[in-house]
Amino acid sequence: MIPEINAKRLLDDLQQLRSFGATGSGVVRLALSPVDVAARRWLAARMEAAGLVATVDGVGTVFGRSRRAGPTLLIGSHSDTQPTGGWLDGALGVIYGLEIARALGEQPETQDLAIDVASWCDEEGTFAGYLGSRSFVGEAVDDAIATATDREGQRLEDALRQAGLLGQPRMRLEPGRHVAYLEPHIEQGGRLEAAGKSIGVVTTIVGIRELRVTFTGQRNHAGTTPMAIRRDAAMALIHFVWQLDAAFRALADADTVWTIGRTELDPGSLSVVPGKAELFLQFRDADPMRLRAMEAKLADLVQRTNATGAVQVSLDEHDAPSEPVAMDTGVQGHIAAAAEAIAPGDWIRMPSGAGHDAQVIAPHLPSGMLFIPSIGGISHDFTEDTGLDQIVLGCRVAARAAVNILRDAAN
Amino acid sequence: MIPEINAKRLLDDLQQLRSFGATGSGVVRLALSPVDVAARRWLAARMEAAGLVATVDGVGTVFGRSRRAGPTLLIGSHSDTQPTGGWLDGALGVIYGLEIARALGEQPETQDLAIDVASWCDEEGTFAGYLGSRSFVGEAVDDAIATATDREGQRLEDALRQAGLLGQPRMRLEPGRHVAYLEPHIEQGGRLEAAGKSIGVVTTIVGIRELRVTFTGQRNHAGTTPMAIRRDAAMALIHFVWQLDAAFRALADADTVWTIGRTELDPGSLSVVPGKAELFLQFRDADPMRLRAMEAKLADLVQRTNATGAVQVSLDEHDAPSEPVAMDTGVQGHIAAAAEAIAPGDWIRMPSGAGHDAQVIAPHLPSGMLFIPSIGGISHDFTEDTGLDQIVLGCRVAARAAVNILRDAAN
Repeated sequence: MIPEINAKRLLDDLQQLRSFGATGSGVVRLALSPVDVAARRWLAARMEAAGLVATVDGVGTVFGRSRRAGPTLLIGSHSDTQPTGGWLDGALGVIYGLEIARALGEQPETQDLAIDVASWCDEEGTFAGYLGSRSFVGEAVDDAIATATDREGQRLEDALRQAGLLGQPRMRLEPGRHVAYLEPHIEQGGRLEAAGKSIGVVTTIVGIRELRVTFTGQRNHAGTTPMAIRRDAAMALIHFVWQLDAAFRALADADTVWTIGRTELDPGSLSVVPGKAELFLQFRDADPMRLRAMEAKLADLVQRTNATGAVQVSLDEHDAPSEPVAMDTGVQGHIAAAAEAIAPGDWIRMPSGAGHDAQVIAPHLPSGMLFIPSIGGISHDFTEDTGLDQIVLGCRVAARAAVNILRDAAN
Repeated sequence: MIPEINAKRLLDDLQQLRSFGATGSGVVRLALSPVDVAARRWLAARMEAAGLVATVDGVGTVFGRSRRAGPTLLIGSHSDTQPTGGWLDGALGVIYGLEIARALGEQPETQDLAIDVASWCDEEGTFAGYLGSRSFVGEAVDDAIATATDREGQRLEDALRQAGLLGQPRMRLEPGRHVAYLEPHIEQGGRLEAAGKSIGVVTTIVGIRELRVTFTGQRNHAGTTPMAIRRDAAMALIHFVWQLDAAFRALADADTVWTIGRTELDPGSLSVVPGKAELFLQFRDADPMRLRAMEAKLADLVQRTNATGAVQVSLDEHDAPSEPVAMDTGVQGHIAAAAEAIAPGDWIRMPSGAGHDAQVIAPHLPSGMLFIPSIGGISHDFTEDTGLDQIVLGCRVAARAAVNILRDAAN
């Protein structure tokens, strides 16, 4: 089977990258922390050893540039993690890219093919989500560099300075160089496992809405205030979510998701009827029309609740809405063909419920994503894992897809 | 009208007591804090000046003992406050007692009547709720003294030592001395105000249940986990409370109350399906049978939720249950008669939705409570207040009730 990847080298490199920030079975490698910067320097050295020209740029992105001429495929993901991250997540796609660049370069049949490899910086948003890929495609990041801080209040600018990166040149998308962007990643969900499949071909990265819903009633003594005269913000929240859940269920398809991840009751005492309550609502879908229908349903429910009176509800944007981003159908087709060739019937098409650098890059380059299963659907957790055979299989599929994409572009 | 209380002296003493821990319009006078101990010393001096024999006992209770022979009425409440307390709350009943003892002693027609006055310590539970009244009726408090701490971790024993009270004699109920216990207090709710009445004659102090309900599901990525395979602890909580609210509504009468004052979602992040959720449920009622029916309904709902499977629910006692405590019908009758004589039609019978020292004392002495209105139903808050005319009216009614109780006992 051409191309042949080196499974041992692939797994060894994944384990070596894991050693930066290893914490039990997990990894703590927050963007631009000393251990993340060390991992990025190591990655750059591995890219150089693979024959690429590697740099760590002014926002921390590691970029390995092929020395070959001709149409180039960009493969990458991110090597930073969540505060309690797993060993694969974005690291998988970065090491896949490295191994594919090496493997293609070693084999006569593919030696002519050009692969660039990237590890974008801060996909996880320790300071500013998708910082590296946003900078790469030319989005303005100077403001973020000047003002963003992490949870501990450390400034992004100071973190870049400490890493010796502040003021360094930033990689920019070079017009005409790349034929496509391919981002391999773990699924981070349980869909492949539930379907008993090894490869996911991503159709769309879902759009996200994040809203804060605030309920304002009247704080009162929980013993001396009869139910009839209460303006109980907590009970209003409960009834609101109950109705919202039913309304969203009526609009949803199998991929629509909505989550109440956080609530606050004020003052939060057993003997006090809450005067204020907040909930944070997130919903995601691949269909922009459905997202708008859900927004309309939410606004309608707010209006109806306010019309009945006792507790007032208001709606704020918690984070800027993101729209669904479709993956390129040509790239999808090459990943699907590679999967079918190597693992017939062992793949499905599916949306990505999580955000990825590919959504930043897709408006600028034909982009595609390949998923491999997450055991138990778990990610962003120390217990995140994937079977080694599936890790190797995913890289073989990605390598074949890479060859097909480049051959197709050359024709 | 006999007896005649001195309204100016009453209000002056209330204002003087307010000055200990005054914070804006409110009062911060946590039990056994330096300012609370100073207030207790001041109270003891005022009692002595009123002709009583005053002591501050080994748990901080101020007890003013009448020098007269014959049947004695005990009047009191507590002078400690919540962390953000109002100026009246328990202080009202203590100063009522002081003024009534003084007023009766000044007038020839009532000079023979014996009034003891108490300010119990730590009704509010800074260290151990109802400490003073519990010690007085002979409940074991040595363990509490040895082990209780406040929110800052200060030990009760150390607070008593610093106040010079540790090891001092503790007042104990003297068999045969008291004919009754009368506790005047602000209502702390909005019922009198809503009814347009000035005096509440308390029928029962409600029983309380406090439970923690824990929902155990599976923490998951909020983007990549389809609704169909989620085990969402937060949604389970919402649906549980919705059903519980409906079930309790069907069981309730106008005085039944239930409150979800606090919830916790774990991990509390927008992008994570909560794997664990907790709610704290409190419910109160004057009828012990209804409390049991509510407990049964709750247990039934837990069982039915667990039978459906996806998220497991468990129930723990958050605080020991307290049973409803009926006030003595004879004492109720004397308060009602006094109210009708002084303010015809301007009073109602009502339960107390809040706990009071009277519930500790009622099993040992015929006990009654008299409420005056709380403006806006507000208490345990700096803005707690009552019209001065209603404060004075309440004391006049209490004084007349006191005379009637004692005259009745002497016959």
